[in-house]
Amino acid sequence: MTTITVAVAGASGYAGGEVLRLLLSHPDVEIGALTAASSAGTALGAHHPHLVPLADRVLQPTTTETLSGHDVVFLGLPHGESGAVAAQLGDDALVIDLGADFRLESADDWTEFYGGEHAGTWPYGMPELIVGAGRQRDALAGVNRVAVPGCNVTAVTLGIQPAVAAGLVEATDVVAVLANGYSGAGKAPKAHLIASEALGAASPYGVGGTHRHVPEIMQNLRRAGAGEVAVSFTPTLVPMARGILATTTARLAGGVDVAAVRAAYEAAYDDEPFIHLLPEGQWPTTAATLGANTAQLQLAVDERARRLVVVSAIDNLVKGTAGGAIQSMNLALGLAETTGLSTIGLAP
Amino acid sequence: MTTITVAVAGASGYAGGEVLRLLLSHPDVEIGALTAASSAGTALGAHHPHLVPLADRVLQPTTTETLSGHDVVFLGLPHGESGAVAAQLGDDALVIDLGADFRLESADDWTEFYGGEHAGTWPYGMPELIVGAGRQRDALAGVNRVAVPGCNVTAVTLGIQPAVAAGLVEATDVVAVLANGYSGAGKAPKAHLIASEALGAASPYGVGGTHRHVPEIMQNLRRAGAGEVAVSFTPTLVPMARGILATTTARLAGGVDVAAVRAAYEAAYDDEPFIHLLPEGQWPTTAATLGANTAQLQLAVDERARRLVVVSAIDNLVKGTAGGAIQSMNLALGLAETTGLSTIGLAP
Amino acid sequence: MTTITVAVAGASGYAGGEVLRLLLSHPDVEIGALTAASSAGTALGAHHPHLVPLADRVLQPTTTETLSGHDVVFLGLPHGESGAVAAQLGDDALVIDLGADFRLESADDWTEFYGGEHAGTWPYGMPELIVGAGRQRDALAGVNRVAVPGCNVTAVTLGIQPAVAAGLVEATDVVAVLANGYSGAGKAPKAHLIASEALGAASPYGVGGTHRHVPEIMQNLRRAGAGEVAVSFTPTLVPMARGILATTTARLAGGVDVAAVRAAYEAAYDDEPFIHLLPEGQWPTTAATLGANTAQLQLAVDERARRLVVVSAIDNLVKGTAGGAIQSMNLALGLAETTGLSTIGLAP
Amino acid sequence: MTTITVAVAGASGYAGGEVLRLLLSHPDVEIGALTAASSAGTALGAHHPHLVPLADRVLQPTTTETLSGHDVVFLGLPHGESGAVAAQLGDDALVIDLGADFRLESADDWTEFYGGEHAGTWPYGMPELIVGAGRQRDALAGVNRVAVPGCNVTAVTLGIQPAVAAGLVEATDVVAVLANGYSGAGKAPKAHLIASEALGAASPYGVGGTHRHVPEIMQNLRRAGAGEVAVSFTPTLVPMARGILATTTARLAGGVDVAAVRAAYEAAYDDEPFIHLLPEGQWPTTAATLGANTAQLQLAVDERARRLVVVSAIDNLVKGTAGGAIQSMNLALGLAETTGLSTIGLAP
Repeated sequence: MTTITVAVAGASGYAGGEVLRLLLSHPDVEIGALTAASSAGTALGAHHPHLVPLADRVLQPTTTETLSGHDVVFLGLPHGESGAVAAQLGDDALVIDLGADFRLESADDWTEFYGGEHAGTWPYGMPELIVGAGRQRDALAGVNRVAVPGCNVTAVTLGIQPAVAAGLVEATDVVAVLANGYSGAGKAPKAHLIASEALGAASPYGVGGTHRHVPEIMQNLRRAGAGEVAVSFTPTLVPMARGILATTTARLAGGVDVAAVRAAYEAAYDDEPFIHLLPEGQWPTTAATLGANTAQLQLAVDERARRLVVVSAIDNLVKGTAGGAIQSMNLALGLAETTGLSTIGLAP
Repeated sequence: MTTITVAVAGASGYAGGEVLRLLLSHPDVEIGALTAASSAGTALGAHHPHLVPLADRVLQPTTTETLSGHDVVFLGLPHGESGAVAAQLGDDALVIDLGADFRLESADDWTEFYGGEHAGTWPYGMPELIVGAGRQRDALAGVNRVAVPGCNVTAVTLGIQPAVAAGLVEATDVVAVLANGYSGAGKAPKAHLIASEALGAASPYGVGGTHRHVPEIMQNLRRAGAGEVAVSFTPTLVPMARGILATTTARLAGGVDVAAVRAAYEAAYDDEPFIHLLPEGQWPTTAATLGANTAQLQLAVDERARRLVVVSAIDNLVKGTAGGAIQSMNLALGLAETTGLSTIGLAP
Repeated sequence: MTTITVAVAGASGYAGGEVLRLLLSHPDVEIGALTAASSAGTALGAHHPHLVPLADRVLQPTTTETLSGHDVVFLGLPHGESGAVAAQLGDDALVIDLGADFRLESADDWTEFYGGEHAGTWPYGMPELIVGAGRQRDALAGVNRVAVPGCNVTAVTLGIQPAVAAGLVEATDVVAVLANGYSGAGKAPKAHLIASEALGAASPYGVGGTHRHVPEIMQNLRRAGAGEVAVSFTPTLVPMARGILATTTARLAGGVDVAAVRAAYEAAYDDEPFIHLLPEGQWPTTAATLGANTAQLQLAVDERARRLVVVSAIDNLVKGTAGGAIQSMNLALGLAETTGLSTIGLAP
Repeated sequence: MTTITVAVAGASGYAGGEVLRLLLSHPDVEIGALTAASSAGTALGAHHPHLVPLADRVLQPTTTETLSGHDVVFLGLPHGESGAVAAQLGDDALVIDLGADFRLESADDWTEFYGGEHAGTWPYGMPELIVGAGRQRDALAGVNRVAVPGCNVTAVTLGIQPAVAAGLVEATDVVAVLANGYSGAGKAPKAHLIASEALGAASPYGVGGTHRHVPEIMQNLRRAGAGEVAVSFTPTLVPMARGILATTTARLAGGVDVAAVRAAYEAAYDDEPFIHLLPEGQWPTTAATLGANTAQLQLAVDERARRLVVVSAIDNLVKGTAGGAIQSMNLALGLAETTGLSTIGLAP
């Protein structure tokens, strides 16, 4: 096929760097402009020493001029900046926003959780999302805009959506608690993100329904078929660089047993190339997903508490961000969905 | 006061070592026999190089002979062994079991979760447990046997019991997910506990209501005033040596708001020397509790999901095991409850 | 080219697993028999959940029968077992020993450091090793046996050999101290390798010239041109799963300045595909090499102490073991040396 | 004895916080003013949640007014600020500088390594430093100014000084490589200190003789009896919050054997309350020293390389900073040197 030229805005950050790491293995892609804000003019190798083949590339400023002329543009920009850039790039380019600006359908949700004016809604880049009788991938063919889901949202949605869609649990009683690696918090130095505070410690953030990923999870569960939805969501930072381990539980609907649940998950995911329901008795570890576009899952039914418990593991930067983004890029461009993406993690 | 002589059985393990670390700062205690099974005959310093003042002490075999003649005997033994040892020590000695043998009241629960025959029930060593209008500490004065609670049980119970006791939440809809340090799994080398598997990884264990701490949590919530109880409990191993961060959520009872919840927690804990409800807006980190007998707590009410979320942090080896044990020892012996125990953690 | 069939003995261990992880991306390889000792009969996915495409493969016993008939056999076996297996496989197969049995030329060294009888010497699988005016890669074309170097040996040798070969330092005054991830210690559960001991701690091992990698480093430096050699070597375990950061220093020969040293390193490594001398001022981090077959290097000359200091970073399981092994396989089989190997690390 | 009132300037930082943690256990001390720069007006609990008894203390601005009137003032200030503050406090107060301003005797060294003008030299707060036939503690009785040593300096000096003082090694051939926890780098958020960069990684800094601790180590070795001194010093950051593991090696003088070395270390340290030479065969781990004022040491003689290798472990914030500072305070005030300090670490 023809080579696809790709630009990455925000290439010095973790999301942009991860897009580049994956694109370097993509057979159909040529990496074009790499842009940044305050880091413009410096070598990429100073920011991402692991990207050896691109070490000498110099970051350009993020402008319409530097980004235009590419088939695909990935945007790893601060909240609120993607819309203006995309508008200037025109409709010919496929613009994939790694940020949050275009994920939500509800302007009210946007205003409540992010503040300011809602920029709009782009096709949602979660191919495996259950939408009625189909999947969200059906809506991604040929699009020229993609909103990449939040990393926590991916972990929780993939974990619980088969049970919600099949009506096996009460969507009004969903509780998700996550163990999160630090790279999800980005690369900007902040007091609570320094290593001395992180090492040997676990702590929560965004507790009590205030986290910005809450409305996005609820939106997904509604699309997967739920009526009323209530999700309690608590992420916790634990001392690892990458990875999300999401424990999502929901009250079982009456009469549901483990066989019914397992059957629903197998039906939902057996054909999914990037979702790996583990053999019974084996539980996910985030280590197995590092660097891979895989979600690993296992489930249990707690008969005493009458709850389903699903544990899902992903790499927040891959399946949770850059890998999911490239998966959507492949779909949008008509490439095989798995092109350039791996299910093989780096462990131990 | 007269010096109290103390023996520790299982001194080479983590629980036994932590009892010793704390006893070295206890003004009324003289450390007597230190015993072990396969490590008998070796120096304590080879097992616990951090206990410098005891480095040259030689471990003796765990026998009635070596343990008898002490005012207090701590037992850090495998499940099922404490009863026989205690029986031989007689009623004069205060025997404090760090293991699970005597925690449960229900023989059925014991058989279901631990297997084998129930050894019996000893006074339960959680002074802060709400029991009717009083506290469990009232039941500990003068006792000669104490069953020390499970570490996860302590984190979850302290987190949710004020809301349960005050009827502010539905005890039939409690979900607890924990981030756990590895020392709770003990010192025996097992494949899933080696550092290469642990570093950079998070993984769950005992999922789906199968963990042995489940019936003990339920027992506590019933004692705190709940009628029917259902608890979904999932611990997850994260890469830290010590610490438990418990996120416990429960469905709010009708009409309950955050002010009512906070008032209940303040009423329950303001006089507790080892429970520290943080100022509003500040969330616990396990780092702040390392080495200390403190539980740090914060809570939020999620109005959208209609759930209370409480996050509690403890050091599993201190407040979760050895510190709680010494606190109960103090009460049993009529010493000031806080003697030899600290609220000051080792951070960063 | 024709597909190469490959068997891996010891596939449940870390070295064997890493060979498989890399072979899954090798375009010319078909993965054949996977064998193990006590794990025979179990699924590979139970041991290496990150190797999703091989999850259902069942481990066979390590026998001549299961291993024969492949073009290449990798051996990840306990010390002393490789010779017998290789002998039975005959000369047609390329046998690559990940262990130490055939690394040393001197039977005396073998007996002193490993004990027992010396099995022999195979072609040494470090393509970049300076040997006279050439490189060790010249000796690997067409061989049917390869001894893969020790991981620490690779880090130290690559770090200091250009200076030794060029006579810029005194090979009788070399000091290397390493920060090592735990996976180099293997997967067998041992008391000092459990996570609780590792997390938050650094400790040395094999101190004082007793480590088995010492004679191998000395052998390499002699091959690189040194006369008399003396190396002080101290590895230290630090809390990471993978990676070696080797700080190697040596006394400067008279009159040598930093320009001469840098020129020697550039001359030695500018054409090496897997050795990346960083731009001046940028120092290696092991994170940049994780999963990659890259060694990253930087050097400084300490004029006051008259010593060269070289810091080299590798992934012990890739460039230090499995990646180096596949690089040698490529050379032995006449494939392009870099086939199936990446310079791109997984960071952060 | 009379209560000693103590103020801490820079109380929101790690060094200041650690002084407070230790002072809370000091029987003769009353904690007075706590001051800060930009954090003035905030509660100490927001910065150090582990210091529960001081959680509600409000930080005052760092001024002569807030600091005066105390018996002792600890200064945890940026480089260059301690002199002016000390001058205003007068001679009655004991001023203990946790920073570097007054450590060096040589103004040339100061200018070369720190830049700017040398502020002067205060009594050096390393009681165990060998000075001729005596120890530095003899020079600390009754002083009203103390310069606390650098943390790396303490680890290296304690490790190698007995051999240097006894002439057992060549002080012109000393090499020290350290594994360092992140808290030594302070609490200010910087890009290379964030958790995502630190976790799973090791990297060096201050390589090639440029680190500011180099001249201080050399000064100490000269005071311990060396003539000419040359030290190669390389610290490396590894993923732990606290701790320094220093591997210090030096070329053996002719004819020296391990018995002579061990005898020298025993003679030097057997009476030292805070230096613990481990039994032969047992090597230090930083974990054993966490929170304690202890240095743990072990040594080996490498006959082949003719080098002494000493490994020393300390907690950089305790023996390396705040504990050493309080030890010097005790000596300056005529208290028992060990008052309020512990040899018991927090492990695992």
